[in-house]
Amino acid sequence: MSDQILSNPPKVSYHEDAPATNFVEFKKIVESRRSVRIFSSEKIPDDVVMSCLDMALLAPTSSNLQCWEFWWVRDEGKLKKMHEACLGQPAASTAQALIVCLARTQTWKKHREQMLEVLRASPGTPKSALMYYEKLVPFVYGQGPLGLFGLLKKFLITPILGVFRVVPRGPFGESGMLQWAHKTTALACENLMLAFRAAGYDTCPMEGFDEVRVRKILDLPSDASVCMIIGAGKRAPGGIYSPRIRFPRDQFIKIK
Amino acid sequence: MSDQILSNPPKVSYHEDAPATNFVEFKKIVESRRSVRIFSSEKIPDDVVMSCLDMALLAPTSSNLQCWEFWWVRDEGKLKKMHEACLGQPAASTAQALIVCLARTQTWKKHREQMLEVLRASPGTPKSALMYYEKLVPFVYGQGPLGLFGLLKKFLITPILGVFRVVPRGPFGESGMLQWAHKTTALACENLMLAFRAAGYDTCPMEGFDEVRVRKILDLPSDASVCMIIGAGKRAPGGIYSPRIRFPRDQFIKIK
Repeated sequence: MSDQILSNPPKVSYHEDAPATNFVEFKKIVESRRSVRIFSSEKIPDDVVMSCLDMALLAPTSSNLQCWEFWWVRDEGKLKKMHEACLGQPAASTAQALIVCLARTQTWKKHREQMLEVLRASPGTPKSALMYYEKLVPFVYGQGPLGLFGLLKKFLITPILGVFRVVPRGPFGESGMLQWAHKTTALACENLMLAFRAAGYDTCPMEGFDEVRVRKILDLPSDASVCMIIGAGKRAPGGIYSPRIRFPRDQFIKIK
Repeated sequence: MSDQILSNPPKVSYHEDAPATNFVEFKKIVESRRSVRIFSSEKIPDDVVMSCLDMALLAPTSSNLQCWEFWWVRDEGKLKKMHEACLGQPAASTAQALIVCLARTQTWKKHREQMLEVLRASPGTPKSALMYYEKLVPFVYGQGPLGLFGLLKKFLITPILGVFRVVPRGPFGESGMLQWAHKTTALACENLMLAFRAAGYDTCPMEGFDEVRVRKILDLPSDASVCMIIGAGKRAPGGIYSPRIRFPRDQFIKIK
């Protein structure tokens, strides 16, 4: 079913012109984004933080299911505990904005319904788009009670179908859904970090934190997984530990 | 150990000035990036593709272990098979550049050694940086034969240590390493897609593909997992299926 829906483009009259963009300006932002581990005491205006968060929400998201959340921690008591939970890293304790980026594995159910509401209310929505959210999305992302449907898909349905035809291979089970949600959330995190840089600020993405403690401090929902914690601010002297190190390009870019 | 290494910033004399950047130009790029599902026949010059791939490699990467790879598929025979493996999606079959973005879960071992070589050759490398790559990295990312060390960390070492002090909670086991590698790779994918937009081109990130067939077509290494496949080109009429749909901001941005 998925290939029938995906391979036949709907007839759409919609068009968006591509505006002129500036690669040199973009390159400057990407090249000057470094992981800054000590921030100065200069504040970031609230509206700048919000503008950057808005940029995060414009990243592409798998099936438009928007499985991300961004918790901007501002409460002094929580912040103090968060600094400790981030293993005392100065990138957290000196940050002028601390944002916990969450990957959610269950919100897609609600968002699927929201998508259907929007699509049903839009005149001219192609049938294939409705079918995608009505039938395909629950089949692809649903894992069933105790993950049993996920197991069935992983070990029976998909391998058997896959003998005869091309089939998508996942996400299967809880770990598959986590991988899926983290991937989409990371796309948004990159937007967020570049947005701060574009606005004249710096960031540090942290994976070194105690997730058990972070869950308690913020009372996270059970299906939320911390993708990364991003500290932001202005770079302080000594905040970048060394010139950027990247190994040779041909280790990573292959022409096939 | 991790908190001691992370919480004590090394004394560094290195400094990078932050250049002036342009938020308006950045916003234009992010806002005009849409998933374009049909591309025109206009080619993308090779040097533009390479410049965009270079931008991908400047994303932040967990512990600088650069666990990503980008396979630009150019061989006609392989391309034809890839179009089918992408479920016949026009975003693949009409793409002027098709890039398979891989998350690698084992290359960190080699890259850790490369990091140590670079650090040892740099005068003034702080001891903590060497210790990080000598001791902490193998402890955090190593999962041992049959994943046994991962199990030990997940069910014994970390929970026990965690009673007494803050500890990082993972990545544990193969699924943890996959989640970790996909997350870092996705950061680079977002750079890549924005870079194409900045250069005047469009992209579509695809998760709808048959990974088993992709593995065969490209003869992927066993530790490589396809994070996403990105098609790129110029937007064709009808290539954007609808105006962008995002649910209300307060579902995703929370102030705590």
